[in-house]
Amino acid sequence: MSRYWSSLVEQLDPYVPGEQPRVQNLIKLNTNEHPYGPSARVIAAIAAANNDSLRLYPDPTSLELRQVIASRFKLTAEHVFVGNGSDEVLAHVFHALLKHDAPVVFPDISYSFYPVYCGLYQMQFRTVPLDENLCLDVEDYIPDTGDKASAHAQTGGIIFPNPNAPTGRGLELAQIEKVVAANPDVVVVIDEAYVDFGAESAASLIAQYPNLLVVHTLSKSRSLAGLRVGYALGHPDLVQGLDRVKNSFNSYPLDRLAQAGAIAAIQDEDHFERSRQAVIRTREQLTLDLGLLGFEVLPSQANFIFARHPTLAGEQLASMLRAKNILVRHFKTLRIADYVRITIGTDEQCGQLLEACKEILL
Amino acid sequence: MSRYWSSLVEQLDPYVPGEQPRVQNLIKLNTNEHPYGPSARVIAAIAAANNDSLRLYPDPTSLELRQVIASRFKLTAEHVFVGNGSDEVLAHVFHALLKHDAPVVFPDISYSFYPVYCGLYQMQFRTVPLDENLCLDVEDYIPDTGDKASAHAQTGGIIFPNPNAPTGRGLELAQIEKVVAANPDVVVVIDEAYVDFGAESAASLIAQYPNLLVVHTLSKSRSLAGLRVGYALGHPDLVQGLDRVKNSFNSYPLDRLAQAGAIAAIQDEDHFERSRQAVIRTREQLTLDLGLLGFEVLPSQANFIFARHPTLAGEQLASMLRAKNILVRHFKTLRIADYVRITIGTDEQCGQLLEACKEILL
Repeated sequence: MSRYWSSLVEQLDPYVPGEQPRVQNLIKLNTNEHPYGPSARVIAAIAAANNDSLRLYPDPTSLELRQVIASRFKLTAEHVFVGNGSDEVLAHVFHALLKHDAPVVFPDISYSFYPVYCGLYQMQFRTVPLDENLCLDVEDYIPDTGDKASAHAQTGGIIFPNPNAPTGRGLELAQIEKVVAANPDVVVVIDEAYVDFGAESAASLIAQYPNLLVVHTLSKSRSLAGLRVGYALGHPDLVQGLDRVKNSFNSYPLDRLAQAGAIAAIQDEDHFERSRQAVIRTREQLTLDLGLLGFEVLPSQANFIFARHPTLAGEQLASMLRAKNILVRHFKTLRIADYVRITIGTDEQCGQLLEACKEILL
Repeated sequence: MSRYWSSLVEQLDPYVPGEQPRVQNLIKLNTNEHPYGPSARVIAAIAAANNDSLRLYPDPTSLELRQVIASRFKLTAEHVFVGNGSDEVLAHVFHALLKHDAPVVFPDISYSFYPVYCGLYQMQFRTVPLDENLCLDVEDYIPDTGDKASAHAQTGGIIFPNPNAPTGRGLELAQIEKVVAANPDVVVVIDEAYVDFGAESAASLIAQYPNLLVVHTLSKSRSLAGLRVGYALGHPDLVQGLDRVKNSFNSYPLDRLAQAGAIAAIQDEDHFERSRQAVIRTREQLTLDLGLLGFEVLPSQANFIFARHPTLAGEQLASMLRAKNILVRHFKTLRIADYVRITIGTDEQCGQLLEACKEILL
């Protein structure tokens, strides 16, 4: 606390990212990074951009990158907004599109940055509980038709991840569409950070729904957490609103190397396909193996699993694994304190995790 | 305008950066980039970081970079805040430290992003006119001692660049200190984007004044506009306030390559010294040469000059130079519409500019 802080600062409850250890030789299954590196074309593109041209500002509009992304989704560059990681994109989304007189709505168990953004932009929010199986019930996001006006008045916007984090549970596209169609007066944001590991993207619905915004990141399925690139897809009106906020904050959010690397990453569909399939295979095997050890593992469509053991509290398990140099993530949040979130590593890393669990449970 | 925008978005008047042309073979003297490339050590450091480790998140605290910066200024890492370009740093400064009940104060002719930030965070501001010579008079920023309580109540914070942009005029350190000392109840931000080209940094005053914040960028004197790194130096309480906002916005603003490159840039004092001295020499020569053509050139301590000609309006000159493939910057702002801002290029580029001016004035 300092008298120089704006009144806002004191009230903030900042987001706490997973530990980024400085020591080596840890098995790092705590921040949902990809176990395999990025495409060789990414490394080559960055190398080609690493020269005297760094003295020049990057393209403030990231036009070429936006065109490459657009073409992958059969959209135009006017449908694409890019930012310095999807966290920055989401921040601008809250500020530009979800801040209204009524509260923004999201699940009680979800990405824990959402309430933080609300704090930053002094927005009200309302959380909707997941059901007893930690599933998102889309009916909870459908305004009551008998009382439509009042239901509408109570919602400033909707956001949830698909698949959800940290549960890994996904929704079918028809269910997502139901929510988007039933809320035409507010923006519905589908946060698809993990969608490439088994769920279906709502990007195909963008041409039909001007209130739909889909957010992606290159940090997960493109193996580029270290490069900081995320993007949003939506109607050009939504993108224009985001642009106005971005251009009032930072003209050049993506540096030259990030733009070059991101373009190459999106273009290498083969590498993308191979490496995400490898993660999916390992996830399915790990789910089976942990089940044999007595773990309850939620069905996951992400690059992590959410699991609990009947005889061992989540916090205890996480700390015992930490003692064996394996990092997993535990949330002290009510309802999910029993669980740990385990990022899918290489087969070898997951094998070591299994061995460690066996020793702990002996 | 869209019904999905938050009420804020419509009111915004976003910043417009200088043109980043997509065509080649232009002489680009419009966005104050450095005419010489970054240190070879920067290129080597980025090359060394360009590998599979890009799959991992960067250090969210940029600790090593902050330590390297701190040591250059004989401070500690707790005195250093880093961001994705100094524009992002400034945005957080407005939000975290300058947003109070009273208006933030800055010069009428200054960095045109300041009022944009005020729009974004819905802050009041008051501009103080530069004098008739486009000089900043520090007396205008000293509260009236006879009426101290009311003067204080009228100021939420103070920010100005030193040297000022787009005039290039600098203030002496004693003058800066006078403003900082006379306003102990609010934060005084000295935006030193151009300080390395001839002005004196207020960083040496930080140990004495808990209300002083100094903002630097690697875009100008470190030749890294394309890498997006900026930082602020100040009392740890101020840095902590900035951290709280940053951690409520984006945990990882600096990617792995940017952190690696920035560390190398700060460490190469020789390259820094040589390349900034080259710019200063060229500036002094260009100032003389334009004077001989009848231009009035303000004395500059920056990597640009601000000049006008008695027979040619600024807008006309800029557009005639554009026709000759030379970009300079013109502002339509009242009081300075007669001027053009010319970035210091290489000696050859400045020679071509002079030739073009001669032809235009013939």
